[in-house]
Amino acid sequence: MEGISNEVCSLAAHWGLGKLIAFYDDNHISIDGDTAIAFTESVDTRFEGLGWHVIWVKDGNTGYDEIRAAIEEAKAVKDKPTLIKVTTTIGYGSPNKANSYSVHGSALGGKEVDATRKNLGWPYEPFHVPEDVKKHWSHHTPEGAALEAEWNAKFAEYEKKYKEEAAELKSIINGELPAGWEKALPMYTPESPADATRNLSQQCLNALAKVLPGLLGGSADLASSNLTLLKMFGNFQKDTPKERNVRFGVREHGMGAICNGIALHSPGLIPYCATFFVFTDYMRAAIRISALSEAGVIYVMTHDSIGLGEDGPTHQPIEHLASFRAMPNILMLRPADGNETAGAYKVAVLNRKRPSILALSRQKLAQLPGTSIEGVEKGGYIISDNSSGNKPDVILIGTGSELEIAAKAADELRKEGKAVRVVSFVSWELFDEQSDDYKESVLPVAVSARVSIEAGSTFGWEKLVGPKGKAIGIDRFGASAPAGKIYKEFGITAEAAVAAAKEVC
Amino acid sequence: MEGISNEVCSLAAHWGLGKLIAFYDDNHISIDGDTAIAFTESVDTRFEGLGWHVIWVKDGNTGYDEIRAAIEEAKAVKDKPTLIKVTTTIGYGSPNKANSYSVHGSALGGKEVDATRKNLGWPYEPFHVPEDVKKHWSHHTPEGAALEAEWNAKFAEYEKKYKEEAAELKSIINGELPAGWEKALPMYTPESPADATRNLSQQCLNALAKVLPGLLGGSADLASSNLTLLKMFGNFQKDTPKERNVRFGVREHGMGAICNGIALHSPGLIPYCATFFVFTDYMRAAIRISALSEAGVIYVMTHDSIGLGEDGPTHQPIEHLASFRAMPNILMLRPADGNETAGAYKVAVLNRKRPSILALSRQKLAQLPGTSIEGVEKGGYIISDNSSGNKPDVILIGTGSELEIAAKAADELRKEGKAVRVVSFVSWELFDEQSDDYKESVLPVAVSARVSIEAGSTFGWEKLVGPKGKAIGIDRFGASAPAGKIYKEFGITAEAAVAAAKEVC
Repeated sequence: MEGISNEVCSLAAHWGLGKLIAFYDDNHISIDGDTAIAFTESVDTRFEGLGWHVIWVKDGNTGYDEIRAAIEEAKAVKDKPTLIKVTTTIGYGSPNKANSYSVHGSALGGKEVDATRKNLGWPYEPFHVPEDVKKHWSHHTPEGAALEAEWNAKFAEYEKKYKEEAAELKSIINGELPAGWEKALPMYTPESPADATRNLSQQCLNALAKVLPGLLGGSADLASSNLTLLKMFGNFQKDTPKERNVRFGVREHGMGAICNGIALHSPGLIPYCATFFVFTDYMRAAIRISALSEAGVIYVMTHDSIGLGEDGPTHQPIEHLASFRAMPNILMLRPADGNETAGAYKVAVLNRKRPSILALSRQKLAQLPGTSIEGVEKGGYIISDNSSGNKPDVILIGTGSELEIAAKAADELRKEGKAVRVVSFVSWELFDEQSDDYKESVLPVAVSARVSIEAGSTFGWEKLVGPKGKAIGIDRFGASAPAGKIYKEFGITAEAAVAAAKEVC
Repeated sequence: MEGISNEVCSLAAHWGLGKLIAFYDDNHISIDGDTAIAFTESVDTRFEGLGWHVIWVKDGNTGYDEIRAAIEEAKAVKDKPTLIKVTTTIGYGSPNKANSYSVHGSALGGKEVDATRKNLGWPYEPFHVPEDVKKHWSHHTPEGAALEAEWNAKFAEYEKKYKEEAAELKSIINGELPAGWEKALPMYTPESPADATRNLSQQCLNALAKVLPGLLGGSADLASSNLTLLKMFGNFQKDTPKERNVRFGVREHGMGAICNGIALHSPGLIPYCATFFVFTDYMRAAIRISALSEAGVIYVMTHDSIGLGEDGPTHQPIEHLASFRAMPNILMLRPADGNETAGAYKVAVLNRKRPSILALSRQKLAQLPGTSIEGVEKGGYIISDNSSGNKPDVILIGTGSELEIAAKAADELRKEGKAVRVVSFVSWELFDEQSDDYKESVLPVAVSARVSIEAGSTFGWEKLVGPKGKAIGIDRFGASAPAGKIYKEFGITAEAAVAAAKEVC
């Protein structure tokens, strides 16, 4: 019933995953009663439409031969995934609760367990494995050991012949990153041309793909907007499995779920996936599973604010930064320029047990003096300051595309004689992990004159600007207009930051 | 491709929506290129599996008769929805851009528009409607007027015969709530039995259904857990359309989308829908559309914290309260007991242009002295206070299931001679709308000793507790254990609140 499940099922057939066998427990019982109250489609026909081989086992309760035959048939079909629909009775064997929801939602209870044992002719104690069952399974241990030894011997031979390839495979199995990989990250100076962070992200991805053999991924049908293609690779398809550009189609949830699987398969596989930031709403459950399962997926989320312009409020994220800052075990990163985008990728690659979300701009941004990879690694850091003694008149805090605006406002204020510190706040989570001394060196408790500027919900910013500070942001839905115009209309400007700074200091 | 679309398509067939005709523009172009790079399923077969009637128009560019015939066929099929697959060329007629993505993502441009006009033999000025086209369409105006007059006459007759029914229909069309409807809301005293707010919600829903003819809804296969059945009604099904319990199946996004449609259809229709609070992750895009489209859907979200117990971290919301407080035009309500649940429903019913999310407990909660419907309407209010002159030693702020804990902590502190105010903070949005005077009367600026307690992310609470206060909450994923045990383990207790209060005052 859950629609999102259709996404990976469609892709499984598209990719011809012949080794995939899915069992569908067709027991006709849902929590609210017989599935017929809400579910009368033909699952068989639907999966045939998706391109699966479908087998129906009519008696899943006792039809052991039928089940065995179905599995053999499924294994023989090598060009498509197979769905084995198994019609069963839920709670089979329980004399009073079989075929009802009550065996799904709660334990049978001692009395009904006894009655079920009797009914099924199972006279053993709880957790007792009868001798003949043990015997039946016992051949698996030596068989498995033999298979492992065979594989190890094969790999030893392979290693002799193909030293480099074997080392690469080992690094993916062990998750060891190649020494000096981070040197591949591009560096920028304030003289580098202004650019959108989505484009700078593309430069990072392409640089990293050369040194990280496990880096692979793609976009949910927005590769040309998210700028996520690895130029030296082709498309990962049924007949080209060694390529690294995955074409997920318009399937955000499935994309996230697949990347979770890749990340959890081997620690050296580093999956990334991409869509517009606002469409994380379609894949939020998958992202939460990344966080909960400690899967270091890299989420490349472009078009990260009203700055995307004419697509309007349906496409403009507002609450999304706040909503992920509130989610446990997520690194929410919003880089401001080239060096910060490189820094965000460094952090994302190093964090193999914590997913990273990179919020990236559609619009061009200046390369700012003072930004650095090392700064990003601390979450928040000073990019410019004309104060002394850790006592600026005012601290301006910006993230991503608004750091440039904060820097401009600082220039104005300094012209008027103010001592102004500009702080880039790329990641709240990383800053939280710094020492108290470091935090004090960036945001001294004694300085309550603070202004934050971020083109998103101000929810949460009180923590950083305090009751005497001001948070400039957007607490309504966006609007359709060119980026420059909408920024002005919504008051996300250097003038507004200057005015707010004067109010607070 | 988007999986969630499958949900409503499955339900449309289940409900036999014979009037629904969907056109599928089969142009084989997606943003990243030919759809074949990611999409090779048979859409026809899939929809047949869902139970749709499927027609294929092979030439959607110029096959006018074929299109007309398909529409007639679709109208004749009255027991199923129809999908008309129309194979077309995207950008048909454009000599240089037809059949490519470039006609999707950007404007043709003046030169290509000219070339297209020439190619299609359309010699008119922009926006000019030729006389024969105008003439061809002109009969629609008098025909429409005649149909409207006919309907009005029919309704006038109906109104004479069925006064009550006609008034009800009118009230649904106009959105006028019946006078005194809110008197149906149940009232509670501290002596009323302790109860889960999900159960108190069921009492409200059942009381309101008697007085609000437009109230209808249901759950995504969790009716027995969300407690959302209207007991005086049966199931809304193909042959029982007058019933009001909608069985959505396990289809959260589709459920939200359908409720948006109901809410926007007529202002007097008041749809509600339900699932576990954590599963809002599966329907976040639908909820955002409620907010953006000003659809007053009531989201009944039970099992709203770690208090749900053994289902564990996959089912325990942590960041969800914060994530919706950050979303524009949402009313996030977390009532603490019977009176507050009634208050939340009063607010939700009155807000026809703003969706409400009710976060409700699985576990039983005490009926607290001092709670009221009027208090809820203000968002935040004092439920008990032994201070004078608006100068308590400390303010304890709780929401939902933790208000009881705040109240217990206050009792302890008062025994030790402290002047303690307890504030229930049901809705941040409603409190924000109050006057400065009212806000000062509840949370005086001069009192910086504040402690909040909420079994969820502390993200955002700094706004209310300030830099000198303490926010008790949960900034990690949950765990599987009985509610009492996990609350203790995670430090969401009266003892913790007492200790925090002593630290800050």
